Amino acid sequence: MSQRAWRLHIRKMIVLFTDFGLAGPYTGQVNAVLQQNAPGVPVIQLFADAPAGQPKPAAYLLAAYATWFPEGTVLLCVVDPGVGGERRGLIAEAAGRVYVGPENGLFELVLRRAARPRCWEIGWQPPMLSASFHGRDLFAPVTARLAQGEPPAALGSRAEPRGYPDWPNDLAEIVYIDHYGNALTGLRGESLPPGARLAAGGHSIAHAPTFSSVPRGDAFWYVNSNGLVEIAVNAGRADQALGLAIGSEVTILA
Amino acid sequence: MSQRAWRLHIRKMIVLFTDFGLAGPYTGQVNAVLQQNAPGVPVIQLFADAPAGQPKPAAYLLAAYATWFPEGTVLLCVVDPGVGGERRGLIAEAAGRVYVGPENGLFELVLRRAARPRCWEIGWQPPMLSASFHGRDLFAPVTARLAQGEPPAALGSRAEPRGYPDWPNDLAEIVYIDHYGNALTGLRGESLPPGARLAAGGHSIAHAPTFSSVPRGDAFWYVNSNGLVEIAVNAGRADQALGLAIGSEVTILA
Amino acid sequence: MSQRAWRLHIRKMIVLFTDFGLAGPYTGQVNAVLQQNAPGVPVIQLFADAPAGQPKPAAYLLAAYATWFPEGTVLLCVVDPGVGGERRGLIAEAAGRVYVGPENGLFELVLRRAARPRCWEIGWQPPMLSASFHGRDLFAPVTARLAQGEPPAALGSRAEPRGYPDWPNDLAEIVYIDHYGNALTGLRGESLPPGARLAAGGHSIAHAPTFSSVPRGDAFWYVNSNGLVEIAVNAGRADQALGLAIGSEVTILA
Repeated sequence: MSQRAWRLHIRKMIVLFTDFGLAGPYTGQVNAVLQQNAPGVPVIQLFADAPAGQPKPAAYLLAAYATWFPEGTVLLCVVDPGVGGERRGLIAEAAGRVYVGPENGLFELVLRRAARPRCWEIGWQPPMLSASFHGRDLFAPVTARLAQGEPPAALGSRAEPRGYPDWPNDLAEIVYIDHYGNALTGLRGESLPPGARLAAGGHSIAHAPTFSSVPRGDAFWYVNSNGLVEIAVNAGRADQALGLAIGSEVTILA
Repeated sequence: MSQRAWRLHIRKMIVLFTDFGLAGPYTGQVNAVLQQNAPGVPVIQLFADAPAGQPKPAAYLLAAYATWFPEGTVLLCVVDPGVGGERRGLIAEAAGRVYVGPENGLFELVLRRAARPRCWEIGWQPPMLSASFHGRDLFAPVTARLAQGEPPAALGSRAEPRGYPDWPNDLAEIVYIDHYGNALTGLRGESLPPGARLAAGGHSIAHAPTFSSVPRGDAFWYVNSNGLVEIAVNAGRADQALGLAIGSEVTILA
Repeated sequence: MSQRAWRLHIRKMIVLFTDFGLAGPYTGQVNAVLQQNAPGVPVIQLFADAPAGQPKPAAYLLAAYATWFPEGTVLLCVVDPGVGGERRGLIAEAAGRVYVGPENGLFELVLRRAARPRCWEIGWQPPMLSASFHGRDLFAPVTARLAQGEPPAALGSRAEPRGYPDWPNDLAEIVYIDHYGNALTGLRGESLPPGARLAAGGHSIAHAPTFSSVPRGDAFWYVNSNGLVEIAVNAGRADQALGLAIGSEVTILA
C-alpha cells in the first residue's frame, strides 16, 4: 500500500483495549497523550477491564471484539505483565485494522485469523520512557501517529512475531466476566454444534436464544452480540450462581 | 412542530442513562455507534450503573435527573431485561426532551410528569440486529439520527405507550446507591413535610440541611442536588451503616 | 501577566481530579457543565477515585500527578467533605498550572512545592447553588471560564490560603490503591535513600527496579512513573497480600 493509500485507509478512530481500569490515572494519562498527539481523533474506550495481566484470555476477547470495528481503526492494546522486561513492542496489521501493544501473545488470535497479517517491531523511542508505563510513554504516542496516517514502517521495522502454536483456535475457558455477571468464553459460536450442552463450574448448561426465553434464575448459553459463546442467568449473575471466574474451564458435551 | 423547528429545537447533546457499566464493551460500542452516526455531537455519560435490569426504580431515577438537562437533549436510556423478547422500542418526547429506549416502564414517570407527552413506536430497522444488544444495534443509531435533527415521525409511528397506573407518583424505596454509599429514594423533596422523619433499614432518620451540619458518623436525610430525598451518613457509607440496598423500603413517619 | 499573556498561556485542556466515581451522575453532570460552558475544550478524566472525603492523602496524590501535565492546564479538583459548610472556594496558580476547588488542604502540597504560587478566593456566584454539589454548580463553571482564558482576578479576589504547616513534605502513608492493587505512598522517590527498605502492613519490603525483576508473588517497592514510591506484588495484589489500605503507615528502614 502506498503511503497515500495508507493515509486514506486509516479511519481516524482509536480504540482502547486495556486492563488499566477507568477511575485511576492510567486511562486518563493515556487519553491525555492521545489528545495532545492526535487532537480531534475520537477515542473509543472498549475494554478497561481486560483480564488483568493475562494476555492469553485477553487475546481471545480482543479477537472477538476488534473485528466489530471498521477497517482502518487503530487499536491500542495493553495487557502487559512483562513491562520493563525484555518483551518487544509491536505494531500489527490484520484484516485492515492496526494494533499497537506488547509482544506477549495478545495479538496471536487476531494474527492467526487474518489472511496476510504483517508485523513491525517498534523502533521509535520516546523522549522519556518510564519502566512501568509503556502504555502511556510508548504505545500511546505510536498509536496517535498511526491514527494520523503515519505508516508503520516509519515507526519500526518488519518483524516475525513470536508464535503461540500450542494455543487453540477457540479457548474452552471463561475469558471475561461482564458487568452483569455473564461469563464469556473464548469459544466462537460457530465452533459449537447447535444442540450442544456445556459443562462449567460443575453445572450442565443448555442453549437458549436469549434471556427472555428461559425462566428467571435459569442458566443458559447463547452466542453473544460479538459472536462469543456466553453463559448467563436470566435476571441473575452467572458468575456467582455457577461459581465462574476468568480461567474456569468449559467442557463441550456431545 | 415543523421539521425545521424541530431541527432548531434539538440541542445536539446526547445523554446516556444505562445499566451497561463503563469498563466493559457495552458503553464503548454504543459510543462507537454514536460517534460514527453523529460525529461531533457531545455524549454525556450520566448513569452507567442504573439499577441493573430493574426498570421501575430506574424510572424514578431517570425522571429526577433528566430534567436537569436543557430542552432538546436526546437521552439514550437502556435498562432492558426483556431484550430479545416482545417489548417494543420507543421514542418519547416529554417536556421538550427526547428519550429513546425499551417500552418497559422506564419512561413512565417522565411521561406522567409532562404536560403533553408524545410517543412513537420505533419502526426503523437496522441492517443487523443482535438478539441481546438492542442498545448498540437499534437504540444508538436511532438516538444519533434524532440528535442530528431527524424527526421522530421519520423513525416510527405514533403510539400510545403502555401505562403503569399502579406505580405511585413518588416511590418510597431506595432506587440507587451512589459512589459514596448514599442511598437515593424515589421520593421528591416536595412530597415530604419539612419536619418529617424517615424509617429505613430499621433506623429512624431525621432531616438535616447538609453533611457538615451533623456529627461524623450520624445518619440524616436531605434533598439532594437533583431534588430527590437522599439518606446519607456524614463521613460514612449509609448503605453499609444502615443496611440499605436498591429496593429497601422507606417509611415516612408523621 | 497581562490578560492577553494569560490567554495565550492557558492550554485549553481541563483535567478532573475528584472522588466522584465515574458510573453515577456526578462526573457526568460536571462534564455536561464543562461541555456547555467550554465547548470543544478537551476534558481529561485523571482520577475519579481520589481518596473519598480525605483531602490530606489526596493532596499528595494530586501534587505528584498534576505536574505531569503541561503548564497552562486547568485542573478541577474536588475532594470536599465540608461542602455546604464554611470552607471557601479557591483558584490557585502554581508552577503555571491552575487549580479550582475547595479550601481544605487539597492544594497544600501543590502550593508548597511551587516558587511563587498565587491564590484567589472565588467570588463569582452561580445562578443556582445546591448545598451538596459545588463541583457541578460552582467549580465546574469557574473551571470552564478559566480554561477559556478568563483571568482568575475576574472570578475572585486575591487571598492567602490557609496553611497546613504540620503536614510533612512527604507523607509516609498509603495514599491510593490502584486498579491492580498496587499501594501508592505519599513519598517521592527522591526522599528515600536508594537501598532503603520499607515496612508496611507488618512486612519488610525491598526495592526492585520493576515487576519482571522479582519472582511472581514477591512484594517490592519502586518509584512509579509519576515519581511516587509504590508498593507492588508481581502478578498479585499488594493491597490484599500485605493488608494495605489508604492511611496505612509506611516506615523507612535504615
